[in-house]
Amino acid sequence: MRLGMIGVGRMGANMVRRLLRAGHECVVFDLDRAAVDVLAAEGAVGASTLEELAAALAPPRPVWLMLPAAVVDRVAEQLVGVLEAGDILIDGGNSYYVDDIRRAESLASRGLHYLDVGTSGGVWGLERGYCLMIGGEAGPVAHVEPVFQALAPGKGEIAETASRKDRRSTAEYGYLHCGPAGAGHFVKMVHNGIEYGLMAAYSEGFNILSRANVGKAGKAQDAETAPLRHPEHYRYDLPIADIAELWRRGSVVSSWLLDLTAEALGRDSELAKFGGRVSDSGEGRWTVATAIDQGTPAPVLSAALYQRFSSQGEDEFARKILSALRFVFGGHEEKA
Amino acid sequence: MRLGMIGVGRMGANMVRRLLRAGHECVVFDLDRAAVDVLAAEGAVGASTLEELAAALAPPRPVWLMLPAAVVDRVAEQLVGVLEAGDILIDGGNSYYVDDIRRAESLASRGLHYLDVGTSGGVWGLERGYCLMIGGEAGPVAHVEPVFQALAPGKGEIAETASRKDRRSTAEYGYLHCGPAGAGHFVKMVHNGIEYGLMAAYSEGFNILSRANVGKAGKAQDAETAPLRHPEHYRYDLPIADIAELWRRGSVVSSWLLDLTAEALGRDSELAKFGGRVSDSGEGRWTVATAIDQGTPAPVLSAALYQRFSSQGEDEFARKILSALRFVFGGHEEKA
Amino acid sequence: MRLGMIGVGRMGANMVRRLLRAGHECVVFDLDRAAVDVLAAEGAVGASTLEELAAALAPPRPVWLMLPAAVVDRVAEQLVGVLEAGDILIDGGNSYYVDDIRRAESLASRGLHYLDVGTSGGVWGLERGYCLMIGGEAGPVAHVEPVFQALAPGKGEIAETASRKDRRSTAEYGYLHCGPAGAGHFVKMVHNGIEYGLMAAYSEGFNILSRANVGKAGKAQDAETAPLRHPEHYRYDLPIADIAELWRRGSVVSSWLLDLTAEALGRDSELAKFGGRVSDSGEGRWTVATAIDQGTPAPVLSAALYQRFSSQGEDEFARKILSALRFVFGGHEEKA
Amino acid sequence: MRLGMIGVGRMGANMVRRLLRAGHECVVFDLDRAAVDVLAAEGAVGASTLEELAAALAPPRPVWLMLPAAVVDRVAEQLVGVLEAGDILIDGGNSYYVDDIRRAESLASRGLHYLDVGTSGGVWGLERGYCLMIGGEAGPVAHVEPVFQALAPGKGEIAETASRKDRRSTAEYGYLHCGPAGAGHFVKMVHNGIEYGLMAAYSEGFNILSRANVGKAGKAQDAETAPLRHPEHYRYDLPIADIAELWRRGSVVSSWLLDLTAEALGRDSELAKFGGRVSDSGEGRWTVATAIDQGTPAPVLSAALYQRFSSQGEDEFARKILSALRFVFGGHEEKA
Repeated sequence: MRLGMIGVGRMGANMVRRLLRAGHECVVFDLDRAAVDVLAAEGAVGASTLEELAAALAPPRPVWLMLPAAVVDRVAEQLVGVLEAGDILIDGGNSYYVDDIRRAESLASRGLHYLDVGTSGGVWGLERGYCLMIGGEAGPVAHVEPVFQALAPGKGEIAETASRKDRRSTAEYGYLHCGPAGAGHFVKMVHNGIEYGLMAAYSEGFNILSRANVGKAGKAQDAETAPLRHPEHYRYDLPIADIAELWRRGSVVSSWLLDLTAEALGRDSELAKFGGRVSDSGEGRWTVATAIDQGTPAPVLSAALYQRFSSQGEDEFARKILSALRFVFGGHEEKA
Repeated sequence: MRLGMIGVGRMGANMVRRLLRAGHECVVFDLDRAAVDVLAAEGAVGASTLEELAAALAPPRPVWLMLPAAVVDRVAEQLVGVLEAGDILIDGGNSYYVDDIRRAESLASRGLHYLDVGTSGGVWGLERGYCLMIGGEAGPVAHVEPVFQALAPGKGEIAETASRKDRRSTAEYGYLHCGPAGAGHFVKMVHNGIEYGLMAAYSEGFNILSRANVGKAGKAQDAETAPLRHPEHYRYDLPIADIAELWRRGSVVSSWLLDLTAEALGRDSELAKFGGRVSDSGEGRWTVATAIDQGTPAPVLSAALYQRFSSQGEDEFARKILSALRFVFGGHEEKA
Repeated sequence: MRLGMIGVGRMGANMVRRLLRAGHECVVFDLDRAAVDVLAAEGAVGASTLEELAAALAPPRPVWLMLPAAVVDRVAEQLVGVLEAGDILIDGGNSYYVDDIRRAESLASRGLHYLDVGTSGGVWGLERGYCLMIGGEAGPVAHVEPVFQALAPGKGEIAETASRKDRRSTAEYGYLHCGPAGAGHFVKMVHNGIEYGLMAAYSEGFNILSRANVGKAGKAQDAETAPLRHPEHYRYDLPIADIAELWRRGSVVSSWLLDLTAEALGRDSELAKFGGRVSDSGEGRWTVATAIDQGTPAPVLSAALYQRFSSQGEDEFARKILSALRFVFGGHEEKA
Repeated sequence: MRLGMIGVGRMGANMVRRLLRAGHECVVFDLDRAAVDVLAAEGAVGASTLEELAAALAPPRPVWLMLPAAVVDRVAEQLVGVLEAGDILIDGGNSYYVDDIRRAESLASRGLHYLDVGTSGGVWGLERGYCLMIGGEAGPVAHVEPVFQALAPGKGEIAETASRKDRRSTAEYGYLHCGPAGAGHFVKMVHNGIEYGLMAAYSEGFNILSRANVGKAGKAQDAETAPLRHPEHYRYDLPIADIAELWRRGSVVSSWLLDLTAEALGRDSELAKFGGRVSDSGEGRWTVATAIDQGTPAPVLSAALYQRFSSQGEDEFARKILSALRFVFGGHEEKA
């Protein structure tokens, strides 16, 4: 089918490519004209304005937004003046699901359908396919299904889940209608929350491995340093990169994130080019905020999030309070 | 080659089977004579005593123990009287690596080699292969390598790690000599610590998904219940089992543990047969204890461990203190 | 001065009493007429309607609401029709500070002043005085200051802070104008977040003390129970209640919450009348949600909150996932 | 009575002073002869050798060690050659209780009694008194009781615990015999674990307060920075130092640690002289290790400990793993 794509940065461009390869047609628009030209050269139809994009599509027009969450509302508002009743706006970015609920209501009152599609796959999605978590009305979802089929990974070589023999679902092809407006981004949000937790579990584990030799160094013996009772238990120089590779085969912790860890450590087992300042992009925060709203305990997902905040230096005043207290009650000077 | 296997419970028996399939010979011993007979019928050589087992092996004898950690020392001591200088004792169970260091020294003083082999794979290892993390001296490790090769998964269909093109290691076949005595179980210990963290990340995420409908129920409005500010944001009945299946394809959180989660939820998305009392078997505790010894922060791995302790009811007195304090300072009665 | 008090439940009634004792006059209203009568008998002026209450006050009328957060908006709306421009509405309950910001704007547009006053002290405040955290415009705060002075504890016998010799503030009397609308409840919210953390720290510590004898019992030795390596280190039957009392004197952990812990344990060191289901009332959640909004790490305050959620059973599905995974990958049956 | 004190650094010297003021006699020894001379000038008896110290005491000699934990064993061993059967060795430092158990056994076999005394009070103890947690045999504890009485704070002006009217204990005077060998340091260890948790709760809370203005700054709007949805909720410049002072009066979070926080913030509300590198001195680690041994959940105490580890930079490799993963799967460059 023919789809409009607004926003052809790294993610959007690759999605267009995957759609073109599957035989779909894409009309693309971006404020960055060069990005549009690149895709036009690869077979997409370039549009210079939203109006042009709309004109190149047949109603009910499917228009996919692949934009920073912060600008979705503005572009959606512009599209209201360009699209027709019955057209389908699809937000494939990382919107907060609460905004989807509001947006779907607002657009419905003006005759437009709205789908929220959480999209996982990153820069690997072009080859690997995108995992799609979809929210919205059933009718528009069914209309756009060919697009979802083309973007998703499909069955691939992934083994069938034995217990699901009699339970068929598009989930087995990598896309799923999860529920009404917001459900897609809700599921994607939790997906990212889990991702933070998984990443943190590996990162803590590899940190422990990397420090298996702390008994070797003659560690400082002063009142401000807790002594190591058994330095003889910490004399291993472990082959970190090889261990990551090892665990990819037959272990309980094998995963795609572990594959990537092995890739990163294979490049440089010291990770010397990284400083360890870790950004977070919203979904991790929303997941924890949701858990708190619900009254659901989420200690692991929260700890993973806080580790990122601390890496950004946001724990500084808290640490100063601790140092100040130690100084006031015990006369402890900070160790340089 | 011909290997002695002591302890042929669920794990040990399957390892023998995998070795037999690969053309190796196994002499097996177990206090449970029936377990020995079963394997004898499948091609193994049964032994009635440790002496008989030793007599059936050629020096340097490789003897693999697949026993509960608590009995390894006792059996090792018995074997000292049976084996000869140069023989190789292999502990494939879940020993604490600190015990390995002690054991290796003690056995070395009596002429025996000791290898510690962390083994991951569980009941799936027979088909999938076992991931082997090996500690000990290089010579004995090389001698037993054919056994490791047979037990490990091998390259299989797992994609090559691009950055490792020029870096060859047995890790790519699923077994690795990680370092001197204890290194194998150290790596396995951290592996299990990570496993706890990964499991907790999924469990918290699915719990949040399962509670996406808390805004539907008319929730109690009393002074002891924090109100939900926006019940309209929590009205989703999400298809949990399908979401687990969905994420297996193309998502960032795909993993073997997710495959198993999909399998478990495919059987019953309510998990009604489980009560939620979660045991822990030692490695998770040792991982956190190690992190603390090292001074390595491990908030995620610890939170995962504590969730299990709480599930066992071990937080009870702490919770009673909280209730008692709320009663004393605010007159709050516990909600039934 | 003469103050109107709406809502004379446990907290409100005691505040009226403390004001009366200080020589202030109180006009009180409550839907529960009996509660009004009780206070009228103690010297307050009872009012049967909001109009009657307003009529009994001189402009600019200070009207203090001591109501559940959920009904403040409704009552404020009713008062808009009853009060006059320049009158001062004071919310002394546990409102979310975000609601204060909205309310202050809305009431200002109709000529009314709004103060938000976070109030700590619980059932002990009548004797001990209330710690008051105040938000709103400076003028109305100054007008009502005599009331704040009477409710607050005053200097009392609390030692002067040495470093503050040249820094005078009403903080030393137990009340403080913290900033514009919402600042009072913002500070109170964080106060309660800290309170959760403090309570959790004590509760975890006393739990560890209470389990100092776990090496005495012959603990189950099975594959589902991690063994205690050194039972001989855990043979203490510690006098929990006496330890709480002990720490009140000269220790670093002395505090009012510890005083209360000693009181509770003094009544019954087993806390047998409590089951350990711990409610949370909003502020703890808001504190963590605020931290996440800000990007401020709050691992301790969050862990304290999650412990309460778990005590309410909200971790159940997460625990079931863990049990199900252990069953699927390792054949582990749940321990009864 | 007459007591020997070995180790008269900051803590030991003040304890001698407090004993002298109470009318006791002290024979003091330290490798730092100047420290001995200072106390001799204040009324203590200086000793140049351990033998001289022993000779100046009457059997059964009470000898108090106030030394770094790392040297206690060595000095105890030296004293074995100097003391007589029946003499009483008291370790008032911060030994690991597990060492006490071993030491008490070893010394008992050579006729000496051993008491372990956890001592809280820091540099404030001279005036405030020391809170003493005592382990060991009842006889020697009774013999030394006059010393405990003099060091402890006594009843002071601290309000009586209502529920303890009919329950008399030395706890009310600030010292307590907690149980057999090791019990004193066990209780002190948990005390310090709680202290870490309390400190962390305050530090996180004040950090949140200090960042109540994050909505004011025009925060970076890029893909690597999660946007603040409601900057208008974060426009407070809160008077942090005054708030600490405020909470000292009538609030639920009042405590001695809060008194010290007010003192520290009163000196400089920015805490500019501190960098936020927070040492930990052993007890916090042992508390968490104990909790893990016991299977007792301690999420708050652990989070507090890990915050210190992170402040020491020990999370670096973990953070690098996170950055590397984000780069590999999403092409995210680290933000400078």
